[in-house]
Amino acid sequence: MIRFNNDYNKGAHPEVLNALIRHNDESYPGYGLDPWCEKAAGMIRDCIGRPDADVHFLPGGTVSNVTVIAAALRPYESVLAADTGHIHVHETGAVEHTGHKIELLKSKDGKISAQQIAEAADGFNESIVKEHITEPKMVYISFPTEYGTVYTKKELEDISSVCREKGIYLYIDGARMGYGVGAYDGTVSIEDIARLADVFYIGGTKCGALFGEAVVICNDELKKSFRSSIKQNGAMTAKGWLIGLQFCALMENGLYFEITKKAVQQAIRLRNAFAEKGIPFYMVSPTNQQFVLLTEEQAEKLSEKYFYEFEFKTNTGYSCVRFCTSWATTDEEVDELIADIALLDD
Amino acid sequence: MIRFNNDYNKGAHPEVLNALIRHNDESYPGYGLDPWCEKAAGMIRDCIGRPDADVHFLPGGTVSNVTVIAAALRPYESVLAADTGHIHVHETGAVEHTGHKIELLKSKDGKISAQQIAEAADGFNESIVKEHITEPKMVYISFPTEYGTVYTKKELEDISSVCREKGIYLYIDGARMGYGVGAYDGTVSIEDIARLADVFYIGGTKCGALFGEAVVICNDELKKSFRSSIKQNGAMTAKGWLIGLQFCALMENGLYFEITKKAVQQAIRLRNAFAEKGIPFYMVSPTNQQFVLLTEEQAEKLSEKYFYEFEFKTNTGYSCVRFCTSWATTDEEVDELIADIALLDD
Amino acid sequence: MIRFNNDYNKGAHPEVLNALIRHNDESYPGYGLDPWCEKAAGMIRDCIGRPDADVHFLPGGTVSNVTVIAAALRPYESVLAADTGHIHVHETGAVEHTGHKIELLKSKDGKISAQQIAEAADGFNESIVKEHITEPKMVYISFPTEYGTVYTKKELEDISSVCREKGIYLYIDGARMGYGVGAYDGTVSIEDIARLADVFYIGGTKCGALFGEAVVICNDELKKSFRSSIKQNGAMTAKGWLIGLQFCALMENGLYFEITKKAVQQAIRLRNAFAEKGIPFYMVSPTNQQFVLLTEEQAEKLSEKYFYEFEFKTNTGYSCVRFCTSWATTDEEVDELIADIALLDD
Amino acid sequence: MIRFNNDYNKGAHPEVLNALIRHNDESYPGYGLDPWCEKAAGMIRDCIGRPDADVHFLPGGTVSNVTVIAAALRPYESVLAADTGHIHVHETGAVEHTGHKIELLKSKDGKISAQQIAEAADGFNESIVKEHITEPKMVYISFPTEYGTVYTKKELEDISSVCREKGIYLYIDGARMGYGVGAYDGTVSIEDIARLADVFYIGGTKCGALFGEAVVICNDELKKSFRSSIKQNGAMTAKGWLIGLQFCALMENGLYFEITKKAVQQAIRLRNAFAEKGIPFYMVSPTNQQFVLLTEEQAEKLSEKYFYEFEFKTNTGYSCVRFCTSWATTDEEVDELIADIALLDD
Repeated sequence: MIRFNNDYNKGAHPEVLNALIRHNDESYPGYGLDPWCEKAAGMIRDCIGRPDADVHFLPGGTVSNVTVIAAALRPYESVLAADTGHIHVHETGAVEHTGHKIELLKSKDGKISAQQIAEAADGFNESIVKEHITEPKMVYISFPTEYGTVYTKKELEDISSVCREKGIYLYIDGARMGYGVGAYDGTVSIEDIARLADVFYIGGTKCGALFGEAVVICNDELKKSFRSSIKQNGAMTAKGWLIGLQFCALMENGLYFEITKKAVQQAIRLRNAFAEKGIPFYMVSPTNQQFVLLTEEQAEKLSEKYFYEFEFKTNTGYSCVRFCTSWATTDEEVDELIADIALLDD
Repeated sequence: MIRFNNDYNKGAHPEVLNALIRHNDESYPGYGLDPWCEKAAGMIRDCIGRPDADVHFLPGGTVSNVTVIAAALRPYESVLAADTGHIHVHETGAVEHTGHKIELLKSKDGKISAQQIAEAADGFNESIVKEHITEPKMVYISFPTEYGTVYTKKELEDISSVCREKGIYLYIDGARMGYGVGAYDGTVSIEDIARLADVFYIGGTKCGALFGEAVVICNDELKKSFRSSIKQNGAMTAKGWLIGLQFCALMENGLYFEITKKAVQQAIRLRNAFAEKGIPFYMVSPTNQQFVLLTEEQAEKLSEKYFYEFEFKTNTGYSCVRFCTSWATTDEEVDELIADIALLDD
Repeated sequence: MIRFNNDYNKGAHPEVLNALIRHNDESYPGYGLDPWCEKAAGMIRDCIGRPDADVHFLPGGTVSNVTVIAAALRPYESVLAADTGHIHVHETGAVEHTGHKIELLKSKDGKISAQQIAEAADGFNESIVKEHITEPKMVYISFPTEYGTVYTKKELEDISSVCREKGIYLYIDGARMGYGVGAYDGTVSIEDIARLADVFYIGGTKCGALFGEAVVICNDELKKSFRSSIKQNGAMTAKGWLIGLQFCALMENGLYFEITKKAVQQAIRLRNAFAEKGIPFYMVSPTNQQFVLLTEEQAEKLSEKYFYEFEFKTNTGYSCVRFCTSWATTDEEVDELIADIALLDD
Repeated sequence: MIRFNNDYNKGAHPEVLNALIRHNDESYPGYGLDPWCEKAAGMIRDCIGRPDADVHFLPGGTVSNVTVIAAALRPYESVLAADTGHIHVHETGAVEHTGHKIELLKSKDGKISAQQIAEAADGFNESIVKEHITEPKMVYISFPTEYGTVYTKKELEDISSVCREKGIYLYIDGARMGYGVGAYDGTVSIEDIARLADVFYIGGTKCGALFGEAVVICNDELKKSFRSSIKQNGAMTAKGWLIGLQFCALMENGLYFEITKKAVQQAIRLRNAFAEKGIPFYMVSPTNQQFVLLTEEQAEKLSEKYFYEFEFKTNTGYSCVRFCTSWATTDEEVDELIADIALLDD
């Protein structure tokens, strides 16, 4: 069976693994206060063009989201998010567990707009019962989104601009950041992200690392005592250097961006194959996640050889499923799937 | 410099690393629903003699503590702990962050007694203002303790017995479980732990793994929806098999217990060396952590070649410091330190 | 100025005030453990036909909601509510502040349906990623709703039935319970509420008391340690007898139901007056809150003599406003407003 | 039976009750945005000599404590308190329920010292593992304390001074503020309190009101969005004017201070009577709470006619009990008790 079901089904990129092997017998200070974390932070600051940024290494995505949000907001402040956002739909109420409300904005394709944010902010600012409602103080967006879509540079600039105007922090969940900045026909660079967001994270777990995410804090207001928040939220890794070391390997010569861009190209080859076969898309995605609508026969046929992720059944009887490439996907695997798509019954 | 400052300053035991290398290119289901986690859980169940136990793999110690406590207690229920307990002194209020009070019991050597627990329980049960105070519903102990001491089998049996009598869960923090059951002249086996505790964890991070702890739930009342608690507390590892795989390597032929017992033997050699030199102990420890009182000259001399952990300055001018061996400590390192201890000025 | 803006703008019903005056100099045990609370609880149990119910007296509505929800749910369990529900729109994230997610169900008129609940429950039960989402374990409805509408007996029975089938608690926010069971053409009695809900509250603050709500727990599972939850949530009133005493006065000879029914009749007179004038309703309400759409001129005219609550501006330029009667509204006030409605320009 | 068990066993002072009666039929805006709250706030600002202070009216003591603490602290910040402090011993973990740790300081008589605070602050500031411990950011003291004792002006000034030096907020729980500033031989005025604290509350419930406390915020940093915190913590009273009105009555011509000072004088008469009889004190108190040690016979004898509060049994067989006067205690009640004390067997 070949796994196209997600982008976290294999270990680490060989360069990452080799780094871990190479330094396994060396000893380091704990809790992220080691030379590798320091070096990785420096490489990230260079890469994103923000010498002033704070960089912290956390073990996973949900705990990064929770730590960032709990550290940034006062109890009566809420986070605005798409109703498709990961923090709302797939984190078992982790954000609410820390006491914060998520205010939902309608989304069709995983994205929200600057206008929606402005309206939410104005709704609060113009309210005559402010103390009876939560104050939107952070916007959460994912880049790419949970549906594989990406914001254009213009869209992101508008969002950032409205956030700054309204005094709202912009937080970008970059669990798949590499696939986002490497999007087909994409217009957003990692420097753009770092210029427009107040805080974001560069995902490692889904982009070549065994585990780990790099939280980057650009806004000075959010920097204070962040390590206390990491510890309090259970996200302080004893052997923190393991994450720093992995990010050093990933940042070296742009490996991170190279391997994720490659995965996007593979996904676009799959997209073309589905399109040629006339298989409809649930969402047109320029990144490594492809959502298509399969007939029962097609779904069954492909499931004989491939793992994909089932999403839901449409009213008209289609199965919406996700095919996902990753840094670990081989060209041969893609070739094989393309050949099998071509052989599907209509 | 040789590190004796803690037991988490090196990567993984070679067998653990080899397992990770061997299976790096294979693909697995996510979130701990993989064959390695299943196998490791089975090996642990066999090893501890509890075929009925649930076993979950979490990435770190603090997040394990928080998840277990938040999952077990209602909001008005508290956890009893030694005032030296890790959840009280070194987790940045993580337990309180989830809404629970820790009720402290005085401790001299890191341990608490069955009688102290009984008194706290009776204090609540006999109170005429029960609704104004929190109800002790869980006892937290660490094995070995933060000072390296261990409970005797009798002490543990008494604690377990009073807990069951009073309807209180017994939770054992086993961040250093291997060093505890491998204690010099120790009387407590891992089967005893599993027989006497309602829930405990077998620490991997400090005992040969890159990272990861195995939470073992023996009491049926605590099993329901534990995976939801893991996710909500940010402790659900996407590539969960990484932890399962490491525990498979550690459980294979008792490697976990062998390497930690070895570290204890090394620590006892150090203990003897300190004793022979007439250096006083802050606490007599039968495990891998040795707390000694050094003069300023001794502390400075040893710091030229060794990292140790400074604890505090005594009233009489001594430095209380910790020397810690681990599964990674070599006999040569111990020999060298012993030689240098012998050379110290009195 | 005459206040029709809400139903909490005057003190207490004379009978309630008299009771407070009569017993002001007597002394009582604190924290709700007094004869008046005991007597009031008994009167309520008799009135609702639930001799097995637990009755607690809390000082306000929001804190009642929070206490009930926090006491009933485990951290990973959520509460289902209409997206118009008070706990979602007007309590400053108080429920999330205690760590719980509210899962929203679409509502047009403040109500939700048994089918929506069933779908949400099935959505969870059929999910293959249960541990990544919160588990709906409580349904929150308000009776009457925030828009003055009421459920029919059939609707409530269906909701209760699906809740019991799915293992979900039904909680009814009865801040305006009197106006709900006294609804024009209403079909739901207080006995029905007590038969169908697991827990609910009978609102005093808006129905004749100075302050205070009576939380009624019918389901045994929710009774344990509720007083601890009250105290922990800051809702334990030192002079608890003040609330008990007020409820004794309100329950005496059905005063509570009589005065609220009277207010509904007054509201229906207003409704008729608006209808005769051809003024459109935002929502047709059979209770004491009437939502109408006024032209700018009409709104201005009425604001010269009356306080009403402005809700929002419609796209077509109308002001949606609320006129609210209460136990304290006099027939003369209603007559006067009716006369002025008749004089409005079209 | 005559109640000396606490100071909240009767309704309201006649002036307070009369005010409620007088204005019962008038209508007001809700949620504390009414003329009475505004007037009461002004009277309090005048009285305490702080025209810049914000004043809010909350329904009870525990919810005031929780709201103040949750509003002031970030999640990783803790509150320092005496181990006898009300928030620690009698609020069912309400502070921890909002996510904050209470760091305990040893106390013999209910008080803590500036030096203890300085040591705790220094302990944090000098720590090399700051991110592993909570940061003390608020000091909680009660005035008078839970044992009836009071700080001298010098002690309070020292505490305030060290707090400001260390960047720690000083919060004074004034549930019994009147009895504190009216202490026998007391040296602290309400102006001193307002000059030295960052935030405090003037208790109404135990000092002549039916219910309600006035939270006074002197430090600008703590003022922002406090009404949102009130609502989120369930402490926003719909008919807020009820509390404002009561405080107007209490502040009028210094009634609040007059009636509580009278109660202190009565308590001192009791203290003298116990002393003359040779009955030992558990704690020498200059305020309205008197803690004495009774023999079994004495305790039984007095319990025939009086309610007192039993505290605990001493090792030597005495019952430590509390006799409490209040604004409602009559001279006749005190005379009667004094006579009965004189008749006790030794």
